[in-house]
Order: sequence, then C-alpha cells, then structure tokens
Amino acid sequence: MRALRKTASAPGAELVEVPVPEPGEGEVLVRVHAASICGTDLHIYDWNEWAQGRIRVPMTFGHEVAGTVERVGPEVHHVQPGSFVAAETHIACGVCSTCRTGRAHICRNLRILGVDTEGAFAEYVVVPAANAWIVGEGIHPDHASVMEPFGNAVHATFGTEGGEDLLTNPVAVIGCGPIGLFAVAIARALGAWKVIAIEPNDERRALAAKMGADLLVDPKSEDPVAAVLGATDDSGAEVVLEMSGNATAIDQGTRMVARGGRMSLLGLPDGPVTLDLNDQVIFKEARVQGVTGREMFRTWQQTTTLLSTGRVDVSPVITHRFPIGRFEEAFEIAASGHAAKVIVFPGANA
Amino acid sequence: MRALRKTASAPGAELVEVPVPEPGEGEVLVRVHAASICGTDLHIYDWNEWAQGRIRVPMTFGHEVAGTVERVGPEVHHVQPGSFVAAETHIACGVCSTCRTGRAHICRNLRILGVDTEGAFAEYVVVPAANAWIVGEGIHPDHASVMEPFGNAVHATFGTEGGEDLLTNPVAVIGCGPIGLFAVAIARALGAWKVIAIEPNDERRALAAKMGADLLVDPKSEDPVAAVLGATDDSGAEVVLEMSGNATAIDQGTRMVARGGRMSLLGLPDGPVTLDLNDQVIFKEARVQGVTGREMFRTWQQTTTLLSTGRVDVSPVITHRFPIGRFEEAFEIAASGHAAKVIVFPGANA
Amino acid sequence: MRALRKTASAPGAELVEVPVPEPGEGEVLVRVHAASICGTDLHIYDWNEWAQGRIRVPMTFGHEVAGTVERVGPEVHHVQPGSFVAAETHIACGVCSTCRTGRAHICRNLRILGVDTEGAFAEYVVVPAANAWIVGEGIHPDHASVMEPFGNAVHATFGTEGGEDLLTNPVAVIGCGPIGLFAVAIARALGAWKVIAIEPNDERRALAAKMGADLLVDPKSEDPVAAVLGATDDSGAEVVLEMSGNATAIDQGTRMVARGGRMSLLGLPDGPVTLDLNDQVIFKEARVQGVTGREMFRTWQQTTTLLSTGRVDVSPVITHRFPIGRFEEAFEIAASGHAAKVIVFPGANA
Amino acid sequence: MRALRKTASAPGAELVEVPVPEPGEGEVLVRVHAASICGTDLHIYDWNEWAQGRIRVPMTFGHEVAGTVERVGPEVHHVQPGSFVAAETHIACGVCSTCRTGRAHICRNLRILGVDTEGAFAEYVVVPAANAWIVGEGIHPDHASVMEPFGNAVHATFGTEGGEDLLTNPVAVIGCGPIGLFAVAIARALGAWKVIAIEPNDERRALAAKMGADLLVDPKSEDPVAAVLGATDDSGAEVVLEMSGNATAIDQGTRMVARGGRMSLLGLPDGPVTLDLNDQVIFKEARVQGVTGREMFRTWQQTTTLLSTGRVDVSPVITHRFPIGRFEEAFEIAASGHAAKVIVFPGANA
Repeated sequence: MRALRKTASAPGAELVEVPVPEPGEGEVLVRVHAASICGTDLHIYDWNEWAQGRIRVPMTFGHEVAGTVERVGPEVHHVQPGSFVAAETHIACGVCSTCRTGRAHICRNLRILGVDTEGAFAEYVVVPAANAWIVGEGIHPDHASVMEPFGNAVHATFGTEGGEDLLTNPVAVIGCGPIGLFAVAIARALGAWKVIAIEPNDERRALAAKMGADLLVDPKSEDPVAAVLGATDDSGAEVVLEMSGNATAIDQGTRMVARGGRMSLLGLPDGPVTLDLNDQVIFKEARVQGVTGREMFRTWQQTTTLLSTGRVDVSPVITHRFPIGRFEEAFEIAASGHAAKVIVFPGANA
Repeated sequence: MRALRKTASAPGAELVEVPVPEPGEGEVLVRVHAASICGTDLHIYDWNEWAQGRIRVPMTFGHEVAGTVERVGPEVHHVQPGSFVAAETHIACGVCSTCRTGRAHICRNLRILGVDTEGAFAEYVVVPAANAWIVGEGIHPDHASVMEPFGNAVHATFGTEGGEDLLTNPVAVIGCGPIGLFAVAIARALGAWKVIAIEPNDERRALAAKMGADLLVDPKSEDPVAAVLGATDDSGAEVVLEMSGNATAIDQGTRMVARGGRMSLLGLPDGPVTLDLNDQVIFKEARVQGVTGREMFRTWQQTTTLLSTGRVDVSPVITHRFPIGRFEEAFEIAASGHAAKVIVFPGANA
Repeated sequence: MRALRKTASAPGAELVEVPVPEPGEGEVLVRVHAASICGTDLHIYDWNEWAQGRIRVPMTFGHEVAGTVERVGPEVHHVQPGSFVAAETHIACGVCSTCRTGRAHICRNLRILGVDTEGAFAEYVVVPAANAWIVGEGIHPDHASVMEPFGNAVHATFGTEGGEDLLTNPVAVIGCGPIGLFAVAIARALGAWKVIAIEPNDERRALAAKMGADLLVDPKSEDPVAAVLGATDDSGAEVVLEMSGNATAIDQGTRMVARGGRMSLLGLPDGPVTLDLNDQVIFKEARVQGVTGREMFRTWQQTTTLLSTGRVDVSPVITHRFPIGRFEEAFEIAASGHAAKVIVFPGANA
Repeated sequence: MRALRKTASAPGAELVEVPVPEPGEGEVLVRVHAASICGTDLHIYDWNEWAQGRIRVPMTFGHEVAGTVERVGPEVHHVQPGSFVAAETHIACGVCSTCRTGRAHICRNLRILGVDTEGAFAEYVVVPAANAWIVGEGIHPDHASVMEPFGNAVHATFGTEGGEDLLTNPVAVIGCGPIGLFAVAIARALGAWKVIAIEPNDERRALAAKMGADLLVDPKSEDPVAAVLGATDDSGAEVVLEMSGNATAIDQGTRMVARGGRMSLLGLPDGPVTLDLNDQVIFKEARVQGVTGREMFRTWQQTTTLLSTGRVDVSPVITHRFPIGRFEEAFEIAASGHAAKVIVFPGANA
C-alpha cells in the first residue's frame, strides 16, 4: 500500500510502498477514507525539536482518520468489517490508576496513534478496536476524520468539570485555528451567550463569524482584554478557551476571565509562561485547567450528537482537500495561514 | 477606648485613645475579646509597598476578631447584645453580579475590615451585622478570632469545586504557616489519606506533625517533588494546597500534582510566576485554582463544625498571646519565624 | 387604589379600593404594570383545600408581577424610583442555615408574596428591595411578570446540580402548561438534543411545537414511555422534567429516564405517589430531585440572558391579556385548558 | 473441585464435585480463599420468587470472593499467577453507551458473577481479568472478600455526585446490616459529622456503635424522624443512606432528610413504595438517588485506601467464619438476625 512516511531524521516525508499491516488481538484494520492534517503533523513534517525527540524513523505518521473496517483481529466484538469508523488517537493501557478511575485520556502509559505507533497517512492503518468509534448516520464521511480534533474542542469547551458554566454565560475563544473555530460553534450550540472570538488572522476571523461568533476581536488592532471586558459589563468572560498557545495570549486570558471563571488551556506554548497569579487568579478565584485529548468516550458521544444533528456544521472549517499524491501542497497550504483544516485522501489518485 | 492605629505613613503603629464608634443601620458594635495577627497586619505594620498603596492613615487595623456584641444599630435581627461573635472580614455589596450568584466573597465591590475600614485591634469595633457569625458552644473564646484564617484554610482545602477530591486521596500542603497548619488538620479530618506537609522551618514542621501530617518534608534537605512522588507510587498528590506564595514552591506544586489533580493557590507570590504549563498543567489536565476568603457563609458552618466537635484542635497553632499594651513584642514575635498564630487581647492590661 | 382581594373564605375574589401601601425599611413600592395568573392563584380563587388552610382573608393575592418602582423605603440602595423591576416571590429570612449556605429559595422561614403577604393583583404592591430584579433592556415590559414562572422552568431545567447533563442529551418534558412550555424552549436553547414534549391537551402540544420541541407525544394515543425509549435507541431520556404533577405521569417519568439519568420534579401531585424504586431508580441509579422556586438570584441572571438575547421567545405562551376589571374572564379562561399564560393589567381600564 | 451448587429449583444447595473451570480469553482462574454470604445468596439459597425468575440451575452461586490467581487465559496483562485478588462482580460489556461514558457498573448488558455466571462458593472460580482487583498490602486476606459489599457502602456513601455533601454534615444510616455498618464507619472516616445509625436489631445497633456511630436510634422505641430532627437542630440529615429496603423506613428517610439534602437508596424494597413527594421532596429540593454496585474502579481504589490504611476496620462486622462443609450452619446463622457478615472458606475442611 501507499504510505506517507518519515524515512529520515529530516524535514519532509516520502510517499512509499509498504506492506498492508495485520490486525492483532483486539485490533482492527481500517481502509483509510480520509486523514486530516493536525498541527502535530506539521511539526513532524518540519522535523522540529519536539519531533526530533519523540518520533522514531522510519514511521508512517498521521492520526486524524476515518475509514472502513477491512478486517478484525481475534477478540473484537463491537465492530465488524464494513463498519465506518473514526479513530480515537489516545491509546490507553486500561489498568493504570488513571484509567481505572475513568480518565483513560490521561493514562499514565499513554501512546498516541501516528506519533508513538504507525499512523494513518496511508491506505490502511491498524487501530485498537476499543479506539474505533462507529461514525453512524448523519455525518459526512469526508468530515469524519475531523471528529478527533473536533472532539478536542468539545472537551475543552465542556472543560474538566462538565460545562454547566457555559450556559447563558459569555465565552471567549482565543485563537481561531481549526480547534478554536470548532469551539466557537460548539459554545454557541451549547447555550453560551455572546461568544467572542479573538484572532489576528483576517481569514480565520472571517471563518469565526461563519461559525457563529457574536463578536470578533482582532488583537492586532485592539486590546482583547479591553474588548472582552467592554462586551461583558466589565465582568469578563465566565469561560475562556485558550487555543493559541501564545504566551501573551495566555496572560491576556487570565486578565479577561471573570471572577470565579474558568480558563481552559488547550494550546501548547513554546516554553514556560509567566502569569500574574495574585490579581488574575487568586483574588478572582479563577480556575485555570489543562485540557488534552478527549474523554473516552463521553466526548465522542457528544461529538457525534453535535455533528449528526447539524447543531454544528464543520464545512466552513474544511478549507482544502488533496489526494495523498499531492501531499507537499497539502502540507504547504496547511502551514501557510491561509487554510483551516486540510484533508488528505490516501486512497485517491491525482 | 484604646486602639492600635497607623497614625503615620511609616512603619510601626501607635496605641492611642479614640472614641468608641457608633453602629449604624444594619451594623453591630463588638467589644473585642481577642484579635489575632495576620500576615496582612504584618505588612501594614511594616508599611510595605502594598500597604503604602492601599491603607489610608490614620486608621485602626486588625481584622481577625471575636468578641461580644455590645450594641446593635437599627434593622439588626439575628444578633442581640450579648451574643459572642466572630467576624467575616469580607464586606460585600450584596447586589453585584458576583454577590447575586452566591459568590459574595469575590464581590466586585469588596471591602476588607481593618484594611478598607476601621479595624479590630481596639477595645471595640463596628462590623456589619451580616458579617457577625455567632460562635456557639464548643469553641473556646480565645480561639474564636482564629475562625477567620481557619476559614481560609477550610475554603482552600475544600477548593472551589466542593472537596470530593480530598476523600481517600493524598494531599500535599506547601507552606506551614498558620493557614497551612490548619489545612493539614482539616484535610486529615475530612478523609484525605496521607497528608504531606512541606515546610523548611523546623519549628513549623514540628507543628505540622502535631496537626496530623502523615509525612513531613523539609525542602532544604530533599526535593519536595521527588518526596511527594515517592510517597504516592509516582502518581503525585491529587490535591496540592499552596500556602507559601513562594514562586519556586508554586512551580514545584505543579510538578507534584497528580494527573487530573487540583492545586489550590492561597499564598500570594511577590511577583509574576513562571510555570511549565505544557507538561505540568495541560498534558496532565491539572486544575489550578485561586482561593481567597471564605464562602459566605458555608465556610463558617464548616469551620464551626470542625472546631466545636473537636475534629480539629487549633491549640498547637496558637503559640503566643499578648495584651495589646505589648503589641510591639507581639508583632516582633509574629514576624520572627518562631511563632505560628499570635493573639492580642485589646481589653487586657499588662 | 384598586386591588383584587379575597374578602371572604369562599371561592371568587372582589375588586375593591384600598389604600396604597407604604414601603418600610428595605422595601420598595412598585406601580404594577402586569401581573400574570399562576396555578396557585387559581387555587386561591377557587378556594381549594390547600388555600383554605394557608390563606388568611382579607388579602390581595397575585405574585407574578412586574412594574415601575414608585417609591423606596429607607436603606434601599440598588433600585431607584423609576426602575422597572420584576419580583422574586420567595421572601427569605437571610439568616437561617439554608440561607447562610446560599440556598435562600428553600429558606427555613420562607414566605411567599401574595400567599403569605399582600400580593400584586393591585395597582401597587410593596416588595422587599432584595426581591426586586431590574428587568433591563431587551425584555418587553408585558413579558416581565412572566420572568418568575419562566425562572421556575429555568431552575428545573438546569436542575439542582448545574445542568451539564442537558448538553447534547435527550430531554423529556412531561406536562406542557406554561412552565413546561418554557422548559421545552429553555432545554432547546441550552444545548439539549431531541426535546420530547409529552402533553394530552392538543392546543398545548401545538404550543410545544412552536417552542421548539423535536418530538410531540400525546399520552392519550400512545404510551409515552415507549415513545421516549423509541426515540432514544432504548436509552431513555437523560433528563426528565416533570411539570404535570400527575401521579401516573410521575411513575412514567421514572420509566423513561435513562440509566444514570435525572428526573426533576416541579409539578405538585395531589397526594402520595407510588413508585417502583427497584427497577426504575435503584438499579438504574436514577436521580430524582425536587425543584422549587428559583435560585436567588442565579436563576434571574440566566432568565434575563435567555429572554433579553432572544434565545427564548415567550410570546407564544402568553395567550391572553385582560385589564383587571375583567378578572372574572381572566380566571375563567386561565382555568379552561384553552389558555397558557394569562396576564392581567391592574392599571388598565376596560 | 468442591462447589456449592443449586442443583434443583428448590430451597437449599448441594456441595458437589465438579471439574475445575478453564480461563478463556481475557479471563483468570482464581483459587478461592474466602467467599462471603450476601443477602442475594440467601435469596438464591431460599429460592424466593426473584431467584426462581433469575437463576438457571444447575449453577454454583456466591460472588463476594477473594483468592489467588492460579492461571491466566490469553491476553491477560495486569495480573499474574500468584496475585491475590478480589472480584468486582459486575461484568460489563464495555461498549454500550453507558459503559462508553464511564458508568460500566450500570452497563446496559450487565451480568453478575454468581447470578448470571458460575459463582464463587467453590474451590476455584473464573472471572474476567478486568474484574480482578489486586488487593495489595495492608488488607487481611480473610477480609478481602468483603471488599465487594464494602464497595457498595463506599459508593452509596459517596453517592452519585462525589460525596462533598458528607463533609462536616450530619449523616443518617437507615438499616445496619453489613453494608449499613460499613457505611457508618465510612461516613465517619470521610469527615461526616454526627453519624446517626437507625436499626431495630439490638445486636446490630451495638455493632453500629463499634463502627463509630455518634447516635444510635432504635425505631422500635422512638420515632427515627423525630430523633434525627432532634439531633440536628431541626435541620434533618444532609445525607440519608437507606440500606434497609423497608418501605416505611424509605418514607421516613424522606422526612428526615434536610432541605437540599441527599437520600441514597441502596436497600431493595419488596414492592412499590409510596412517598409524599410534595412536602418531603419537591418543596425541600431533596435529591433521591438510586445506588447500585460500585464505580468501576474508582470505588475499588477508595475501598483499598480506607481498608489498607486502617481508616476503617471491618473486623467487628465479620461475625462468623465457616469451612464450606458447614455451609448449612453458615446460611442459617446468616439469615438469623444474629450475624452480620458470614465468611465461607471453600478450601478449608471441617
């Protein structure tokens, strides 16, 4: 089969022929319909410092994936050949203390599909059966690979405490890459009031409007903290969703969150971040929480409902589609700032 | 009456005679039995930068107070002359959006007794009737002024989400000043398992042992992060209570908190704090929350139960008592590192 | 002024002239713009057993009210003459253990406006200033008296735990009187999925459709339990909102609630209710909770946001309006089953 | 091996020789050290109506079990031969919507060990590896079979919302069979205040005192509702744990629960139960919740901590021990009202 692989410890990747893998005990072989490009994939492609430390070449990468189950290994019960599935990319051990208390997505022995295992930019990929989520009706197959990053946005928007603080409250989303754009629409659908999108890129800000933002803020031309306070009777946002990973934006997030409010951090900063804990966290009793992955599998049920019922339409975020043969173009546009979500079709020719 | 006042914009204070104040509408006049010295009082006494910016002289300071209601103003219903009360020191407006949603302790128009109003290092003090908490049976009058900082510890230990994460879980307390010492005992009484006290001061660490710590860590001689991980099967503490305000300790707190765990920040750092958000907060889904004051008045009910039933005994923390005439000694010992809680008796002579 | 009063221990009421009341300490005098008829008012008017035991004649009744502050008593700060306000009708003592822990709406010494005190079917009414909620922009004055029962629906829909279980989940509303109709729209606006309205009255079921119900069930022609299971892949409704008070419907509610689901009870049954606790509550770990009044004042903020932003439009539920002179018609239509909410205008002539 | 089996559709059981079972895929074979008698086992032994409808003979029964792993089937990773384990008796499918959202203990396809599968009153039993919980140090092997019913008590005491309402609050336990006795001690260890035990059997009430009850109530000689109100300043118990299944006691539970309080139902009534929902649930905003099984496996971690640290000592509840040869005596005493927990040792001779 064709697979896009890191064949060397260097930038770029190579489209090569490799054998179709075999599903083992409790695993399924998926014929990939679509695989979308994540920021992590850009890092692997570019071979940045993080990638150099984490990725062992040669390896196929890619992890946002949906496709049809082709074959199942022994002891697989809930999916059959022919099931159309999307993959949860966090592979949990199931028996550590974190898994045993219902928090498998922060498993102590976590491995990531396409990062720690062979990935999905290929005609076929093997995933654990437990990680295969049946997509069901109402979700376009071309959108199903996006359920994984959409799930990140769902999990961040709900937060680690359940999401009641969204209801009728102002929500600020900092950073409108694909996950931020999803979060705008999710907050809107879940009963938030006055969703404020903060994003310097004009094209992405325009997409945020399409996704339902009530207010758009360009931090290049106005102070986002002042903008949020101004839009909330000086209260601040009850919920701040930090999707940028920008250290200045994280600091601003603490300044725009309301007394008693919540800031969920999903964006990964490049290095340590300096915060004014006294005035922005302690005296305000703000809650700053890390968010990663998706609750397994509560988030997937929520994702399925939001997408299959049309409460959220992800179409505007899917800006580009490429057959895998044009992977260089795909990675270039994904990194350009002129794209949101880019989908690659490994089975297609071009 | 005698009152300990800041009479000049300078270090120190002066014991002077002033008129007994009058309780207004909805206020009560309290004859002070005991008033204890808070870290904030030390800052006011020393006239540090914060105090210079906040305190308007001349003013009587002191806010941890208990005494007997002497007289009540109009429209006071639930307390009568003769009631023995302790004072909640957060004076809330009652009508802002934060107050109206049950979070008066982070009122948008908050004033603090003895900081923004005339305080309690005096024979009499006026407090709003709503802030007067009837102490009830089972709590020694000499201990009642300590209910306010004890309440800080109660609120921090419960956290902003209710405290279920304490139950059967390891709890680390960083910094064993009076509030940290209270927190050790409270966590122990509330069903935490393996309360770990981290404190460089030998005397205070010894007090932590008396208050029920299961493990004592001296950060001068061992790495507290390694100590907590070592004591928790490498899981870390489900709850970290940060009482030191030390920037290094706050960073260490994020490193010792478990995946999915909670760190409550009560100690106030001197300046901005730099944190490794990626590995210590985001990937671990840690929850970092500010804590201030006491929930009004849920915390007071909890405090009353813990103290009146003997579940927690604060005696070991009350290391010194002085008549107000010896205030200079009192402040000196309170600042020395050889004391925990120091109580001043304004009605006593010496 | 004109006031609609119970002047005798008998069915009916009398429109009489009485003096305009005086606002006391902490009270405000409101010139009534609109007062709507609640089921409780029908009981008082009809003089049923409950009313005979609770109401002391002579007394003006009516409690769902909005109007303009005419005059304020001493010690009133957050409202001024000219403010347009709606009234919270639960008058709490403020100092009992329930009030002191932020649950004033279930105060141990609760009094109800227009039930235990002089009410609002009159040109003027006196209410405690704390109970006067400034209506603000975006809410039509004719709709403001309805904020009180709308708040009942908000509180029931959020439930006592905060409402996260609404999000993306199926919700069944049993009984589509005014509060049930509001609940349908609120659940829809708060991110519920598949709101199922169960109501035997054809006109009210039609109103439920207008309010956004995804599925209408007529319990006269189909089994509502089967209907809910059929619409939810046999899972049942994660949230059941019981607004009917019908004993059979309450039993059915327990049968249609999902494993681990919530049933909030707002409707008041006529007598004791018999339930199959084993199979419907214990083995399913269902949560059955009572709901009454409105959280003071979190519910009012939520209500204000839902109405002022247009997330919910209550117009379809307000089916009739009468000047107070036609009160007999108003009560007749309100009791007829052909009305939803009926508003009375005490200042109008007809 | 020897096994105690239901060999006929009739009361009683028979000790017979059967082959040692084989562990299949993902299963382990456990050499039984101890198996304790549950109320369910008494029903199976007595062959009551429920048992006749549920149990298919011939079958070995018994499910509260601990022992040493003898052999493991394929694909078993976290336990090895030699591990000493206790068994979670709820066998969940892992893929239904309830399992996928972290609530496997109320799985839609739930099977129960020793009820729906071959059980543990035998020298060997096969259990799914996922259900084998490594007992660890600090728990006496003779007590380990009791972790399963102790876990019921833990789960009931924490409740379905996490247990923060235990902290510093009064808790009433209705019914002091083994699970009620455990609950008394657990509530005490978790920071409840004033644990009130209600039980008509004098011997069991005496055991409740040993387990740490602050107040004992004999409902034969005093009204338990009045007793609880009297002990709580007329507030009622914030948490009521219903362990009796007695319809009158369940009704009383609703009358003794505080405004805004929680009643957890674990005891199974014989038939439908009639409740005064208006005054006891709705106006008080009480929360009535079903509790079953144990959270998998959060409850097991909590259980392990409580027992291994000595926070709870179950010794007083384990009143009798028998070799399996004396099973008739064991079942007789277990049903007599003069025993609490009875343990059977299938490997012992007598």
